[in-house]
Amino acid sequence: MLSVAPTYETLKVQPLDAVRHQIRAGHYTAHTAGLANGFLQTNVVILPQRLALDFMRFCQRNPRPCPLVGVSDTGHPLMAMLGGDIDIRTDVPRYNVYRNGTSAEQVTDIRQLWRDDFVAFALGCSFTFEHALMRAGHRLRHIENNSTVPMFRTNRDTVRAGPFGGSTVGSMRSLPKSEIPAVRDICARYPHAHGAPVYWGDPAEIGISDIARPDWGDPTPVNEGEVPVFWACGVTPQVALEKASPEICITHTPGHMLITEIKDEYDQEKWSEQER
Amino acid sequence: MLSVAPTYETLKVQPLDAVRHQIRAGHYTAHTAGLANGFLQTNVVILPQRLALDFMRFCQRNPRPCPLVGVSDTGHPLMAMLGGDIDIRTDVPRYNVYRNGTSAEQVTDIRQLWRDDFVAFALGCSFTFEHALMRAGHRLRHIENNSTVPMFRTNRDTVRAGPFGGSTVGSMRSLPKSEIPAVRDICARYPHAHGAPVYWGDPAEIGISDIARPDWGDPTPVNEGEVPVFWACGVTPQVALEKASPEICITHTPGHMLITEIKDEYDQEKWSEQER
Repeated sequence: MLSVAPTYETLKVQPLDAVRHQIRAGHYTAHTAGLANGFLQTNVVILPQRLALDFMRFCQRNPRPCPLVGVSDTGHPLMAMLGGDIDIRTDVPRYNVYRNGTSAEQVTDIRQLWRDDFVAFALGCSFTFEHALMRAGHRLRHIENNSTVPMFRTNRDTVRAGPFGGSTVGSMRSLPKSEIPAVRDICARYPHAHGAPVYWGDPAEIGISDIARPDWGDPTPVNEGEVPVFWACGVTPQVALEKASPEICITHTPGHMLITEIKDEYDQEKWSEQER
Repeated sequence: MLSVAPTYETLKVQPLDAVRHQIRAGHYTAHTAGLANGFLQTNVVILPQRLALDFMRFCQRNPRPCPLVGVSDTGHPLMAMLGGDIDIRTDVPRYNVYRNGTSAEQVTDIRQLWRDDFVAFALGCSFTFEHALMRAGHRLRHIENNSTVPMFRTNRDTVRAGPFGGSTVGSMRSLPKSEIPAVRDICARYPHAHGAPVYWGDPAEIGISDIARPDWGDPTPVNEGEVPVFWACGVTPQVALEKASPEICITHTPGHMLITEIKDEYDQEKWSEQER
């Protein structure tokens, strides 16, 4: 076991258990992209039970941006559906705490903040399909540039549930037109991680006036012969949470995900090897 | 519009609107198999809000037997996510009312029973994949025999959520071994309607001691050269509800489903024609 705070490069070659140990101990508090490869990483939302049914309805009605992969029992921080040893209070490298819809603080551990009425939600994230696309030889410019994928508010509203609503946020990856059918087929295999792209073509059609000015993330050029391709994005529930302004809400810090014990090549209810 | 109670044969050739009108008016109270072909039919569970979050967690944790396709707002009987004109109080031909886990009565309308704290859940059903299999030329013996598919308690427990748990129920269709790969591929396209079979082969392996004696439905022979093939079944949530014994719970009467305005070939969040 490493005795000092590990760097990203050190941790990148470690197995899942070692990575989690370092995160849980508070020794590693940076982003998780590329760590414990092959295991599903998720967005995290933690809310008081009073809002949990509406938030769950919101996710059910908007599965592309909000693909639920696990929901804790109320007050139970151990998420057995995501692995044998997952504690949502310690296993995310960095958390954002929101109070009344406003970002209040960033912390690396929420044991002191945990409440008996909290419900934790884990939602699939884009790392899953990005890995699959790269394995198949598709180049993703924001990763090659070591930048954050550009994200945009679109004119496609989510389906409301209680206080939760607002625009669907789309993440954009620029790809050669000829690659789109293959990209679609690969991503459609991961409905628990935003699935296939929801739109490609003229950004104005989905309410984006300037592709060079994303609402979140870094601008990424669309080169000659390429088409901007949009996926439903995990920032959508964060926008819905801001609008709903719960008294308290805790999320992962973007990029600093929960690493589960579920394989990226995911089948929640496989009964037997026959199913593969 | 028909002025007298229509027979099944009369209604079978009517469009969706006419079928729903007859059901809503209480003129048609029989089973819905084969009616309004091409539209998604669903199982229905209605519960007090107090139990709704746990039931929704139960469905999320057991998506094969409990594929959620719509959840109402609390106290709102109009299910906009299933169509422009769906009233869950009148649009099911026949309802079972359970009190404290015991079947209390069958009714054809629940307007008098509806409460401000009710939440209605719609879950996909096997009609969807059965139609798809028949369109592709696979023969389903229980349909040819005009009998009810045989259903069995299995030894595969569901993942618990609050008071909801118990065995997964499997429905059995007997098929030539050579057809299984094609059957799997077809059914996998309908994750919102139980998806691919979860098991095929020796029934003893999943805790079924006598394939000739189903726990529900009619016995169906497995002929020479055929394999019993099992799908996760919508009776699973009914077993979970019996165990949980809610003070009140309303479901459809088996076979008497809610007919939605969603196409069987379902994509809940299609943004544009590009997605097809």
